Amino acid sequence: MSTSLPKTRLYMTKELSASLKIDAVGAPAHYLAGVLRLTRGDVLGVFNGRDGEWLARIDSQGKGRCELTIERQLRPQRDEPGPWLLFAPIKKTGVDFVIEKATELGVSRLWPVFTQHTQSARVNLDRLRSRAIEAAEQCRRLTIPDIAEPIALDALESHWPRDRRLIVMDERGEGRPLAEIVHHFDGSPAGMLVGPEGGFATSELDALAALPFVTRASLGPRILRAETAAIAALVCWQALAGDWNQSLAQ
Amino acid sequence: MSTSLPKTRLYMTKELSASLKIDAVGAPAHYLAGVLRLTRGDVLGVFNGRDGEWLARIDSQGKGRCELTIERQLRPQRDEPGPWLLFAPIKKTGVDFVIEKATELGVSRLWPVFTQHTQSARVNLDRLRSRAIEAAEQCRRLTIPDIAEPIALDALESHWPRDRRLIVMDERGEGRPLAEIVHHFDGSPAGMLVGPEGGFATSELDALAALPFVTRASLGPRILRAETAAIAALVCWQALAGDWNQSLAQ
Repeated sequence: MSTSLPKTRLYMTKELSASLKIDAVGAPAHYLAGVLRLTRGDVLGVFNGRDGEWLARIDSQGKGRCELTIERQLRPQRDEPGPWLLFAPIKKTGVDFVIEKATELGVSRLWPVFTQHTQSARVNLDRLRSRAIEAAEQCRRLTIPDIAEPIALDALESHWPRDRRLIVMDERGEGRPLAEIVHHFDGSPAGMLVGPEGGFATSELDALAALPFVTRASLGPRILRAETAAIAALVCWQALAGDWNQSLAQ
Repeated sequence: MSTSLPKTRLYMTKELSASLKIDAVGAPAHYLAGVLRLTRGDVLGVFNGRDGEWLARIDSQGKGRCELTIERQLRPQRDEPGPWLLFAPIKKTGVDFVIEKATELGVSRLWPVFTQHTQSARVNLDRLRSRAIEAAEQCRRLTIPDIAEPIALDALESHWPRDRRLIVMDERGEGRPLAEIVHHFDGSPAGMLVGPEGGFATSELDALAALPFVTRASLGPRILRAETAAIAALVCWQALAGDWNQSLAQ
């Protein structure tokens, strides 16, 4: 099955069903012709996060437009219940990088959190969403991670769903090893919180530690950059509690 | 202990011992004054990969030079027996990124491997080594990973030490989940091999599978970029078989 999936994939917001004709104009048309260099007769996978993945064929191309026909479903929709990632926005390349890698690693929600030492006070959510869509297209996901409105760390408690654990990467090393926590996890949904460059303030870590839904974790004896810690947290989760026991062919 | 370590660290090739005076000229002097903005009386950690980490104090600064005195040892030397990472050199930012992250993640040797689909046929080893040194300084390592001379994949067999396992990330999904492999590892040293953008050729994966020292691993149901796979492989290793059960304070 895995080898029959087209490598080229496109996310669309439209409903998808067999025999549907789609007239792509503007950016998607340019992407198909100019970036992916697809021409008449070529096939690609399309998905919308709800209806699974479908095989589409290019019927015709013109200036700034591209007509496709949806042929058949390649994969049914399925849940992608990955963890949430809460991260302090870092400098631009850092954020783009975190979005891309977290999407590849199956995150279900990306949630920017402002902390005392957060360098960047503005986040362009449209830009983050575009990055997440590109990464989802390339990594064969069937969903796009949700990009949540940024929140101040001290407002998190009042917005946090009580059935979800929040695993905080405590760079003081006071938590248990993350693998140990995840390996014995009770099956509840989870979020992973990673601090900014320069770390959390001590008062922030102390306040987090007092929250009933928080577990503190450590990521070993070296100092990891913020983006490395984010990736590491998600890798540990997927490898030990997530979907990495499934093969590519599923 | 961990909080008393200076955040600023400098790798030097000199022997280090108490009361030693060091006259840094050129690039290191510029780094201390211009980049780290240290001035007379400031302290930093210095290490050379052999003698542990030492506290040094800046005695005086002048044009393009900086005099330091080594005061006392902060940490004794210890082995950092992380896994090897064998990777196909990818475009420049990709290689720099892999070097930085792999160093943070405790790799002991970085080994560029040329495969059929490797895009970049040249590797600047001095540049890679500089990147590894910067990352080692920042992440609190006591060693610099070894940067090995690039090798062609089909020459690997004749150079591979037979007491070391080679875990190959098989992007066809034919290996067992990496966490399962690492969790039940027998304690022998290991290397992790990650393919290029575009993947290994089928013939390469088949040839690797036939080697007695190779174990094939899978990294879950999504397609990971080459650099994500490299990080993921090292995170799994450190979390399950490496040193992430040690705390920062050790």
